[in-house]
Amino acid sequence: MTPQTLTFEPIAYAETCYRERFGTPRQPGLAPDAWGVIRLRPDLNLTDALEGLEGFSHLWVVFLFHRNTNKAFKAKVHPPRLEGGKIGAFATRSPHRPNPIGLSAVKIEEIADNAIHVSGIDLVDGTPVLDLKPYVPSADRIEAARGGWTESRPERFLDVTFSDEALDRIESLGRGNGRRDLKALIRQTLELDPRPVFYKGVPGRENPYMDTYGFGLEGFNVVYRVDGRCATVLRLENWSEFAESRGQRT
Amino acid sequence: MTPQTLTFEPIAYAETCYRERFGTPRQPGLAPDAWGVIRLRPDLNLTDALEGLEGFSHLWVVFLFHRNTNKAFKAKVHPPRLEGGKIGAFATRSPHRPNPIGLSAVKIEEIADNAIHVSGIDLVDGTPVLDLKPYVPSADRIEAARGGWTESRPERFLDVTFSDEALDRIESLGRGNGRRDLKALIRQTLELDPRPVFYKGVPGRENPYMDTYGFGLEGFNVVYRVDGRCATVLRLENWSEFAESRGQRT
Repeated sequence: MTPQTLTFEPIAYAETCYRERFGTPRQPGLAPDAWGVIRLRPDLNLTDALEGLEGFSHLWVVFLFHRNTNKAFKAKVHPPRLEGGKIGAFATRSPHRPNPIGLSAVKIEEIADNAIHVSGIDLVDGTPVLDLKPYVPSADRIEAARGGWTESRPERFLDVTFSDEALDRIESLGRGNGRRDLKALIRQTLELDPRPVFYKGVPGRENPYMDTYGFGLEGFNVVYRVDGRCATVLRLENWSEFAESRGQRT
Repeated sequence: MTPQTLTFEPIAYAETCYRERFGTPRQPGLAPDAWGVIRLRPDLNLTDALEGLEGFSHLWVVFLFHRNTNKAFKAKVHPPRLEGGKIGAFATRSPHRPNPIGLSAVKIEEIADNAIHVSGIDLVDGTPVLDLKPYVPSADRIEAARGGWTESRPERFLDVTFSDEALDRIESLGRGNGRRDLKALIRQTLELDPRPVFYKGVPGRENPYMDTYGFGLEGFNVVYRVDGRCATVLRLENWSEFAESRGQRT
């Protein structure tokens, strides 16, 4: 058989709380408060195709890993939970695959105005979406499934505390007007320890060149410090000022 | 955001027991004996990427619906289980989608020689495969999921019996040499009633122009008749002779 070239176009883009790859959970559902809005492209007139989706609780999002920076595909990858171990790419959900297609089941919160509001998302803001499918329990929920190396690996590595400055800032933002629980979202995200494998969960191996980290969440650069297995949220910086100061697009 | 054009190449092709769309189950797992072999393209040197997959029981196959014949996308579709009702394409797993990408979880039977042997498959023979991912229970098995219109819809419509001629033929083929249980596979496939919606499960609406049906399974055209809710397998014809006689490729 002669391999074809297959051409697709995004049908939607995801707006999410995560501004960059760093900080974005590596699986859906791990940060239940992580929110996203999947906006269908208005020029495609797809609104009618959503009819009936409201009866489902969860949605498969088939998407492009559009922020991959590596060029050449490597057959083996280092998933964070293997702490340095290597494994075949097809035995992982790594973004680094021959075809950089991602697959995440997220919770449907609301469907309105040609968009699906979801939670538990693990997509970076701006992700192009290729397809949307209902999660069909009779086919997709496989009770007897075994999870290979992903079983018995912890998903949460860090305890998270907040400085008074961070708490005051979060408090001042309030919860009105549809705002989510930002404190819970920060906690859920940092418990997963988004740092690179090398520094993760290995006591005494904190990065000597960088004692604080930051990740982009909604309109903020969330700055935190890690000591052993404890993460402390120090402050929330304004994302656009932060991004400008390092010469990145906002 | 400007929509991009995304280009992919198949990484593998699926060899399966189903020769045509007609007869192929509409979801994975419905015919547990349905078998397939997902062969990685040898020129891509992907064997190492399979390492570690053997620890998982199930595999996501992301594939192309390559046998779609419709040209224009329609926002609403008629899923067989809705018996004539219409619903939005994104609320279904229909092949007819803006991007004709399919998603099926299948059972891993064996991994050897750059190929994955699977069961419970719902892909037509020759299907191009875009990606393979392990089924990760902690992310993919969603206990609380609600299945919208797919709940409380039966998946099995017909009782299946076999003529003596069909039984003799199946018996004569034997079970040795890795041959699967062909009788079970035929039964599982026909119980699902692969006929078009119009004739399906509606007493008195049998197709007046065609009293027998046939579907391509392994090397056979399986010929059967439907009376009410009972399907009778009449005979197994040689597939290549059958396909030749109607001027189709084998």
